[in-house]
Amino acid sequence: MTYCVGVLLKDGLVFASDSRTHAGVDNFSSFCKTTVFERSGDRVLVLLSSGNLAGTQAVINVLKQQGEGLGVVEGQAERAERAGPTILTARTMFDTANVVADAMRSIERRDQPYLARSDITFNASFILGGQIKGEPMRLFRIYAEGNFIEAGVDTPYLQTGEAKYGKPIIDRVITPSTTLADASKCVLVSFDSTMRSNLSVAMPIDLVVYERDTLVAKQRRFEQGDEYFRALSAAWSEGVRTVFRKLPGVDW
Amino acid sequence: MTYCVGVLLKDGLVFASDSRTHAGVDNFSSFCKTTVFERSGDRVLVLLSSGNLAGTQAVINVLKQQGEGLGVVEGQAERAERAGPTILTARTMFDTANVVADAMRSIERRDQPYLARSDITFNASFILGGQIKGEPMRLFRIYAEGNFIEAGVDTPYLQTGEAKYGKPIIDRVITPSTTLADASKCVLVSFDSTMRSNLSVAMPIDLVVYERDTLVAKQRRFEQGDEYFRALSAAWSEGVRTVFRKLPGVDW
Repeated sequence: MTYCVGVLLKDGLVFASDSRTHAGVDNFSSFCKTTVFERSGDRVLVLLSSGNLAGTQAVINVLKQQGEGLGVVEGQAERAERAGPTILTARTMFDTANVVADAMRSIERRDQPYLARSDITFNASFILGGQIKGEPMRLFRIYAEGNFIEAGVDTPYLQTGEAKYGKPIIDRVITPSTTLADASKCVLVSFDSTMRSNLSVAMPIDLVVYERDTLVAKQRRFEQGDEYFRALSAAWSEGVRTVFRKLPGVDW
Repeated sequence: MTYCVGVLLKDGLVFASDSRTHAGVDNFSSFCKTTVFERSGDRVLVLLSSGNLAGTQAVINVLKQQGEGLGVVEGQAERAERAGPTILTARTMFDTANVVADAMRSIERRDQPYLARSDITFNASFILGGQIKGEPMRLFRIYAEGNFIEAGVDTPYLQTGEAKYGKPIIDRVITPSTTLADASKCVLVSFDSTMRSNLSVAMPIDLVVYERDTLVAKQRRFEQGDEYFRALSAAWSEGVRTVFRKLPGVDW
């Protein structure tokens, strides 16, 4: 499993992903699921990946090679199709989401016939958010099929993977006006709640915070046993117990 | 869907269930999923039901008719098998769980061949808890197959149905030493969190609180728009936002 979340605030964007990948409980590993694409002074894009690791890594490699102006070795037809903008040159955030979708579909076309022999489907999906200079910040969730939805003021965050355990606290706390500091703490608590309940979501956690119009992303990794994370978790548990003691008692 | 939870504390037991049943989003209704079996001065048993409504209602009817000393019209063999203790006369809490399991298996034997024609399986499951005079309080989750698990000090609560959204807050707050008052509030917040995220869990909520050794259960129904419930939900949301503002900021 995986847990990824992206939040779109008036002040900026917050992203976080866990690092656990697994094929059964007897085979698990740790891989970073956060990729930041930056072009200095022009754009910051953050891509969170979930699903089959071979699929997500292939998509990210295609995006990186395109961004570096390198071709991707495959059929002539596909190379021609992708002679357009890359994730670093696309004009709008909408266009960058389409660049990611195109890369996903290209990998799926390439791999699917072979995966099908083992009854596996291509199941990579992504959260993509960021800002291109002169454009508003935008946040998308791209499904495995390459179609995508966009966060808005009514639903300012998007999740992938094991979303249920960590959703209620985000629903309670985060609105578009929440500060980047509060939203970062809330997202980390959402991960803590999820990790308590699902062994297939685990540290390290990668956090990216982007402040509007700065075109610079701040990144922080929380390793297993991270002191700040432990203190946050303890303070949160203690805080909510205090809130419960002060809530009005049931009127019988 | 359904959401039911039972909590076993040193001070007593807390139970809650929602009331929504549905067959698709275009066909939903409201049914109470909490049944209290009492024998004055001898026992209080609380049964929370989830799964197919025809199945759970049939099981409860069998338990009630047995308790009233009435037979149940069915095959001779089954009637003989159940000439033992009823839910109101079984000697121990373990035995009452077996009485419920026997009723479930009897209904399944009766209905399953007919359900199978429509590719339906018998999927009733229950949370059963309470106290028989002179016995400790006990809390069980009975699976559709009739086997069951018991809550203990490590895991003092059991859930059925849509359990994920409401689980983290229970994990944070409830230990065996939590007071009945705090646990009641926590369970209600757990329902509020679940109802915000899953339309198939809905008011009214039935709450039962049992104080150890009293052999009397307190019941309270929270209807849609209940003023206390609304105040609790608002106070909780405001409380956690305050906690977030006070949590230590991420150290970059």
